[in-house]
Amino acid sequence: MKDYDIIVIGAGHAGCEAALAGARMGCSTLLLTLNVDHVALMPCNPSIGGPAKGNIVREIDALGGQMGKNIDKTYVNMQLLNTSKGPAVHALRAQADKHKYQVEMTKTLQEQDNLDLKQTVVTDIIVNQGSVTGVKTITGISYNAQKVVLTTGTSLDGKVIIGDVKYTGGRQGEFAAVKLSDSLKEAGIKLERFQTATPPRIDKDTVDFSKMRVHPGSEDKLQFSFFESRAEREQIPCWLTRTNEATKEVIKENIEHSPLSTGIVEGEGPRYCPSIDRKVMRFPDKKSHQVFVEPEGADTNELYLNGLTTSMPEDFQEDIIRSVPGLEEAEIVRPGYAVEYDYIPPHQLQPTMENKVVNDLYTAGQINGTSGYEEAGAQGLMAGINAVLSLKEEEPLILKRSDSYIGVLIDDLVTKGTSEPYRMLTSRAEYRLLLRHDNADLRLSETGYKIGLLDKENYQQVADKRQKIESTIKILDNVRITPTKEVRGVLKELGSGGLKKPVNLTTILQRPEVDYDDLKKLSDEVPEIDLEIEEQVKIRTKYRGYIEKQLKQVEKFKEMEEKKLPEDINYHKLDNVRLEAREKLNRIRPVSLGQASRISGVSPADISSLMIYLEQLDRGGK
Amino acid sequence: MKDYDIIVIGAGHAGCEAALAGARMGCSTLLLTLNVDHVALMPCNPSIGGPAKGNIVREIDALGGQMGKNIDKTYVNMQLLNTSKGPAVHALRAQADKHKYQVEMTKTLQEQDNLDLKQTVVTDIIVNQGSVTGVKTITGISYNAQKVVLTTGTSLDGKVIIGDVKYTGGRQGEFAAVKLSDSLKEAGIKLERFQTATPPRIDKDTVDFSKMRVHPGSEDKLQFSFFESRAEREQIPCWLTRTNEATKEVIKENIEHSPLSTGIVEGEGPRYCPSIDRKVMRFPDKKSHQVFVEPEGADTNELYLNGLTTSMPEDFQEDIIRSVPGLEEAEIVRPGYAVEYDYIPPHQLQPTMENKVVNDLYTAGQINGTSGYEEAGAQGLMAGINAVLSLKEEEPLILKRSDSYIGVLIDDLVTKGTSEPYRMLTSRAEYRLLLRHDNADLRLSETGYKIGLLDKENYQQVADKRQKIESTIKILDNVRITPTKEVRGVLKELGSGGLKKPVNLTTILQRPEVDYDDLKKLSDEVPEIDLEIEEQVKIRTKYRGYIEKQLKQVEKFKEMEEKKLPEDINYHKLDNVRLEAREKLNRIRPVSLGQASRISGVSPADISSLMIYLEQLDRGGK
Repeated sequence: MKDYDIIVIGAGHAGCEAALAGARMGCSTLLLTLNVDHVALMPCNPSIGGPAKGNIVREIDALGGQMGKNIDKTYVNMQLLNTSKGPAVHALRAQADKHKYQVEMTKTLQEQDNLDLKQTVVTDIIVNQGSVTGVKTITGISYNAQKVVLTTGTSLDGKVIIGDVKYTGGRQGEFAAVKLSDSLKEAGIKLERFQTATPPRIDKDTVDFSKMRVHPGSEDKLQFSFFESRAEREQIPCWLTRTNEATKEVIKENIEHSPLSTGIVEGEGPRYCPSIDRKVMRFPDKKSHQVFVEPEGADTNELYLNGLTTSMPEDFQEDIIRSVPGLEEAEIVRPGYAVEYDYIPPHQLQPTMENKVVNDLYTAGQINGTSGYEEAGAQGLMAGINAVLSLKEEEPLILKRSDSYIGVLIDDLVTKGTSEPYRMLTSRAEYRLLLRHDNADLRLSETGYKIGLLDKENYQQVADKRQKIESTIKILDNVRITPTKEVRGVLKELGSGGLKKPVNLTTILQRPEVDYDDLKKLSDEVPEIDLEIEEQVKIRTKYRGYIEKQLKQVEKFKEMEEKKLPEDINYHKLDNVRLEAREKLNRIRPVSLGQASRISGVSPADISSLMIYLEQLDRGGK
Repeated sequence: MKDYDIIVIGAGHAGCEAALAGARMGCSTLLLTLNVDHVALMPCNPSIGGPAKGNIVREIDALGGQMGKNIDKTYVNMQLLNTSKGPAVHALRAQADKHKYQVEMTKTLQEQDNLDLKQTVVTDIIVNQGSVTGVKTITGISYNAQKVVLTTGTSLDGKVIIGDVKYTGGRQGEFAAVKLSDSLKEAGIKLERFQTATPPRIDKDTVDFSKMRVHPGSEDKLQFSFFESRAEREQIPCWLTRTNEATKEVIKENIEHSPLSTGIVEGEGPRYCPSIDRKVMRFPDKKSHQVFVEPEGADTNELYLNGLTTSMPEDFQEDIIRSVPGLEEAEIVRPGYAVEYDYIPPHQLQPTMENKVVNDLYTAGQINGTSGYEEAGAQGLMAGINAVLSLKEEEPLILKRSDSYIGVLIDDLVTKGTSEPYRMLTSRAEYRLLLRHDNADLRLSETGYKIGLLDKENYQQVADKRQKIESTIKILDNVRITPTKEVRGVLKELGSGGLKKPVNLTTILQRPEVDYDDLKKLSDEVPEIDLEIEEQVKIRTKYRGYIEKQLKQVEKFKEMEEKKLPEDINYHKLDNVRLEAREKLNRIRPVSLGQASRISGVSPADISSLMIYLEQLDRGGK
């Protein structure tokens, strides 16, 4: 069989991005999947985006990835969240047509040059002298490659759990990859168990929507991608209902059948997607929990019960659901279930996504202990990019915490590890006012272009945008307004205060009640600009103080990040560093002083000792 | 959990028809599937119809089934085959968009009243005192029902085979139903093994179509269903290429890796879909075999290689494919494979599709030893119908060999059994001039309406059509044309012979060169009629002699079919019947003398003895 530059195992959200990045950057790439019909499957929530996650999708897009474009083509409901709050937490969230999402992504893979998509079961990675050199499939065929990217999701030794029954399966109705787990262990990689669960799906025709609150899609034209504008589309509403005392009763009465009680599930589950059983038991005083009833697509009657995750026995699942207003007669199409799987604790991961034990082996997505399609996509993209850069013997791409949520995600994983499936949250980012969803293109498209992933045309579009933003801001900074009677009249009309001395337009725009277009009443020099330019000009002007403050913090942070730690440092010999810190430093082997400072168990005092040691090294001492 | 009238296990082509028939005829029906995303999957050829099979689809439609409507909504290429031959062998064949076919069928199931679709793994049938009363699932849940229809396809103890590797799987990438096989055996049902295989799927972008012959879809507006007219649609072409000496060489050189040599496959395969390895070895002098390159849908790059079925190791599959013109660079997306599975030898089946050993258990589709989506759909429909009729304590529906291909199919199965996966062929029908695809509505819609499956509106449409056909034929029979100079002129212009004495219009129309519209030049009484009426009038007129002859044969056949055999007859005591015939009669237990006469091993002499015995019975003797 043909040799490849890169082999990607698994065609979920991580695998698709990894394979597309590899192929688009010019490497011959093979994407292997258990079933071509399950490419880009959304096994849980039928949605993309949300706080922080939406920002990740836009960062993927700015770098030249596919997720944003694919959801733009296939959403059935899109909303801009948190519009009443500041721009740092604005985020897009879309309901996907699951089927169409798969069809579109599969088509994109199939039409991509340099990329072969094949259906098979991978049983082994082939390792020679500490480096992966290919994979073996269930039929005994071997494929050779210089780089292998593993994106196995929940398939590694997967077990499906419903009630007190546990059986082998990567997801409900799918194979598990049992042999591949053994192969990884043999190569010296440590595996641990995580679990995740999904709510039941029900039949739309058995729901009484009159008892629920409707959530239609936004009337504004929204989209994730910065680069491909989409046509308007008819949207499908979501619905909101709530659990009640009856729900609590059902769960409490049958709690002995919950995995919480039976202990049938070994791995830790995701903290931010708890099951309804867990929510009821953990917050006994809370009377009610939200349940979003979400369509799984335009062509299906299946609805997703967001908030009712459970892997109780099917009959109790029915009782739980039917206690909720509007769902009294609901028929389950697919029961909720938990799935338990092997993941690779991410301290074994380099910031490039390459494995520390097996060279040329990259991992991305749930196999690294994360949850979420967006987190998976981002890792897949970065693994694909770094596999190519390494092949080309170019500098790796390691995004900083101050660049992007993707940088935060990977730094968190490799530095802190994770004791539960990791989910991105805005609170994980130190510089969230800088990592806005609206400026992901300005933050990352130059990087995407330089590494050879983003098209020149797309990059030029962003460069033009940047230029227009900056020239407009320059004008606002330079045009001075004197407090004439006319000016005071205009400001009064806007409900704004008076003006005592001459100021520039920037100062006027910083007033909360003043919008960009209002400035035109004060000066003829205010340029006509597109809405997206205006948005940037306004955010940069109105939040100028906060942004400048964060930028200063970033500068300080950068100093720490730029203090690189030698690869061969022997932490055990640093007597002035506490024992716990020495062990953690040795385990994680941070690349910079900045990374070292974020390791839990490494104190500021340890960092000071480390800095002294580095200075000694610089002076040539040992 | 809720009790149901009917449970159908498996949502393939048989299961969908069975469940829809059950629900539409008013029974509460539960359809259980391993994966809701795989409803109505086409695991092999992306097409519906063809000779005899197309007739079956139209018969399903005339009775009120779904297959015809579903392919009409989702085809990408439709053709009328054998137009150069007589109407008995005309047949529609359509290429399906596989994905859309599934989406549309799933939607139809979901929108059907009385029908619940659920995803689960059935492990057991529950049998009480010789009758099935429900099913048990992998999670320990039981569902009760009065009737259970098994349509498990290739899932029962399925094994996937590629090269010398054999592993558990219902199809590639899917579960097998291993435990359910055990449950059937425990209930006393005998299982045997069959196998079937499918060709590799390749990537369109790696094919050189300039070396192939294009087969565009028909420009005429064609459709399977008699009842729902469809919109015009843009079609996708198929392509034709051929194997050559190089292909033969590759296969001969590697024949030791073919299942033909390795003996890895236990079950018998389908005679009329042989693998390319088998074709090359069986016909060593044949230089070349056709390969139709068929799209799998509008939204996928996958192509089906009709004619290149093989389950050789993947690397040899690549060599075989690349020997064919246009496929020199073809990349395999999914390798071909064989699947081996349990089936129920159909002598255990009653003509109602009910099992002889376990009451209230019906089986349909590949589980009965057939191949083909159409054969499966037909059986599913009949099983569903008869389950309902039995529930309602009404007469069963047993279609006759002179009614329909469906009648031929089921009679063949229950009477003759099958030693290989059974496929319908026009040659299996004695009365194929009567069982045309164009008159399936006239043959069966009254039956569909009477059993409560076909809508009144649809039935009325056919009744009107019938009336128009008959009134037109009556006019043609009654209008006499005398051989005037003018008449002779018209006939001469049509290239037809002279006329010596007065004849009716029917006689004129029987002339091959005369079309219906030509009659209008001879008489003002020729009515204006729709094209579909005209087609029927022409066929009935031009083939009147042959049709009348077949109708007489049918009358004779009916006499034999109406001579019912008592259920409690003890064949072993019939000394005048040969031992082999006694054994076969006892095994099959035919319902009529007609059925008995078709059992292989029962001679005309045996039938005579049986007739004498029946006469004795009638006279009260023993």
